[in-house]
Amino acid sequence: MKPVEPDLSQISEGMSRLNARLSPQSLAPLLAQLRERAPLVQCLTNSVVTNFTANVLLAAGAAPAMVDVPGEAGPFARIAGAVLLNLGTPHAEQREAMVEAAEAATDAGTPWVLDPVAIGTLAVRTGLARKLVEMRPTVIRGNPSEIKALAGMGSGGRGTDSTDSPDSAAEAGRHLALGYGAVVAISGPVDLITDGHQEVRLDNGHPYLTRVTGGGCALGALIAAFASLDGEVFSAVTAACGFYAVAAELAAAGATGPGSFQSAFLDRLHSTGPAQFGEGLRLL
Amino acid sequence: MKPVEPDLSQISEGMSRLNARLSPQSLAPLLAQLRERAPLVQCLTNSVVTNFTANVLLAAGAAPAMVDVPGEAGPFARIAGAVLLNLGTPHAEQREAMVEAAEAATDAGTPWVLDPVAIGTLAVRTGLARKLVEMRPTVIRGNPSEIKALAGMGSGGRGTDSTDSPDSAAEAGRHLALGYGAVVAISGPVDLITDGHQEVRLDNGHPYLTRVTGGGCALGALIAAFASLDGEVFSAVTAACGFYAVAAELAAAGATGPGSFQSAFLDRLHSTGPAQFGEGLRLL
Amino acid sequence: MKPVEPDLSQISEGMSRLNARLSPQSLAPLLAQLRERAPLVQCLTNSVVTNFTANVLLAAGAAPAMVDVPGEAGPFARIAGAVLLNLGTPHAEQREAMVEAAEAATDAGTPWVLDPVAIGTLAVRTGLARKLVEMRPTVIRGNPSEIKALAGMGSGGRGTDSTDSPDSAAEAGRHLALGYGAVVAISGPVDLITDGHQEVRLDNGHPYLTRVTGGGCALGALIAAFASLDGEVFSAVTAACGFYAVAAELAAAGATGPGSFQSAFLDRLHSTGPAQFGEGLRLL
Repeated sequence: MKPVEPDLSQISEGMSRLNARLSPQSLAPLLAQLRERAPLVQCLTNSVVTNFTANVLLAAGAAPAMVDVPGEAGPFARIAGAVLLNLGTPHAEQREAMVEAAEAATDAGTPWVLDPVAIGTLAVRTGLARKLVEMRPTVIRGNPSEIKALAGMGSGGRGTDSTDSPDSAAEAGRHLALGYGAVVAISGPVDLITDGHQEVRLDNGHPYLTRVTGGGCALGALIAAFASLDGEVFSAVTAACGFYAVAAELAAAGATGPGSFQSAFLDRLHSTGPAQFGEGLRLL
Repeated sequence: MKPVEPDLSQISEGMSRLNARLSPQSLAPLLAQLRERAPLVQCLTNSVVTNFTANVLLAAGAAPAMVDVPGEAGPFARIAGAVLLNLGTPHAEQREAMVEAAEAATDAGTPWVLDPVAIGTLAVRTGLARKLVEMRPTVIRGNPSEIKALAGMGSGGRGTDSTDSPDSAAEAGRHLALGYGAVVAISGPVDLITDGHQEVRLDNGHPYLTRVTGGGCALGALIAAFASLDGEVFSAVTAACGFYAVAAELAAAGATGPGSFQSAFLDRLHSTGPAQFGEGLRLL
Repeated sequence: MKPVEPDLSQISEGMSRLNARLSPQSLAPLLAQLRERAPLVQCLTNSVVTNFTANVLLAAGAAPAMVDVPGEAGPFARIAGAVLLNLGTPHAEQREAMVEAAEAATDAGTPWVLDPVAIGTLAVRTGLARKLVEMRPTVIRGNPSEIKALAGMGSGGRGTDSTDSPDSAAEAGRHLALGYGAVVAISGPVDLITDGHQEVRLDNGHPYLTRVTGGGCALGALIAAFASLDGEVFSAVTAACGFYAVAAELAAAGATGPGSFQSAFLDRLHSTGPAQFGEGLRLL
């Protein structure tokens, strides 16, 4: 395995990063397309969130398939609409299946998402994340400390919890984006999405998402679902993050705690249409 | 492992398959018996649905036990009321435990259910399913594409998703039933249950069951629970499928999406009694 | 591995075991402290309850981290606030990680909880439990049959289900407490907590907790969270069991079954404050 050496030649001090010219009107149709196509999303994810992740995909209109056994993961990545690799509980067999899936997805042109959960101080997943990022994921999603750790700019946080603001990881995100050709989504109170050239911030969401386990992990799967659609990956990632956060806001309005929120959130992922999504979206 | 060679000598072109002479009145008492006995159901199932499966069993009145470690799976299958083998995420250790459990269950006379999730194109699980079906499961449950793939009459679908109608797999189901001495339950908008000689169709259920992950997988576990009761397996399987679908209908009536449905479904599995079950059941 | 030889020299026939001088007023502040600190709880737990366990911790105000991979489990146990080892589905890699975590936790002074799920007749977990208990867990939590089996005074029950009353395992609990220097929590309609010298009984809870899978397992994680706080472990364990049971009572009041209960339970774990906890607590 080579050390991480992002190609940073494209970054210069004075470089101006344009705000992406996205609008609610340009993103909302992607939700309609998602429901029309019901893309098959292969998830190799952690044991804590498999159920919630599958339910999020089903509620939103995609089709989950948790194929993470060596010998199956690769062949399936060739026929899936998109693949998610989430490093939350990376047992030996799953690690092998992840590398197999990343290779097959890359070879077949299947978009794939890397979610480097809790990397930094934890050796097994950090080594795996470095190997996988070299294989050039289509999208990288993480919280600020994970993004900084993956870029070699920090030591990681304490699990999926992160108190840093996404903007604190903006420079790390741009490095990853330019170095590996990925769209990078940094989750937090304000989400930041960057491809190194253009950026967008999302002022949606609700703290209840941090009181339900898998709030970030399931977003990674939804990003994969949107990344399978027509159009630019940058728009797809923004639409996924935005739709997820708008549904969370709508769900939180009637919830009395994280239990009722989780139930209402799945309902809203199912019932929120393109128009309501567009109306609720706040791009910065 | 021998190749799959169902004994088809009992099938002939002109054979008439009788509709089973089952009635709501004959099936409802099985639900009362389930609650009286609280059968212990050993589940070796996929990582996505373990929690939901256990909650379905508990809500309905059975007792789940997810014993799927080699060295424990076999001994436990001897004392369990019934066993479920679900191939959704067949990791190496679990595959070993499944063969151990099937052997012990067969030897001890414990009824066992095979759910060949997403077999067809996926090599690992397809090989395992062929091995397990040779061991003559008491019940086989699947969607139409899985049943066709297991019978060697199709290439499988895309995961647990299936758009084929159960009747499209009726012939495959009869082959499996007669070849291996199993009752076969084919899930879909109308469920079809066959033992090769008699058949019944169930016109109950709700599409929300396909928007909650594990909707089919948990049914496999409930079928195992009913199969542990007194009487014919064919009646038990029909009662399990019918009760599950009636509870889903009742739950869907007050739900606003798949999240609230899931919660209401567990409530209804718990609160629906034999009388309400019998009233709601629509046998075709 | 040495055989289990609890040091029973401290137990004598006539020994009087004092009721602990705990009061709702002395325990309620621990809940406030939990929310202030949000302790990081490392869970090595079974595949059925990972999601629910993490959601219980998040709702209550702690931070879950399911780090159970060899090579990571040990180092993480050094920095975690507390560790839970739950033997519900002890696959080979997790068994290795558990021993690693117990060693590191002991070495680093991190409190850890052992939950010997369904030990007795199941060989793999029973052997592992004997090995782990020798490493002197801070807390042992189980149902009566598990506590008796761990103390060598019974053959275990049928899974997590247990019909014995906690008092039937009181003597076994005292043996374990004195032999290994642990606080022992025995779950049931009335919870019993003992350290061999002092005891307390809790008359809170609701039967719905036995109709939701992981009702006991998630309590083990919450006990770990409280054990990370300042003060005596005995008080911490009592506060954890009491808070959990009071929240269950409040949730059950508005539930129509186990599904709506589960949702309301997470809401109540989140919304119940120290004052309401103290008011609801019934110490015997």
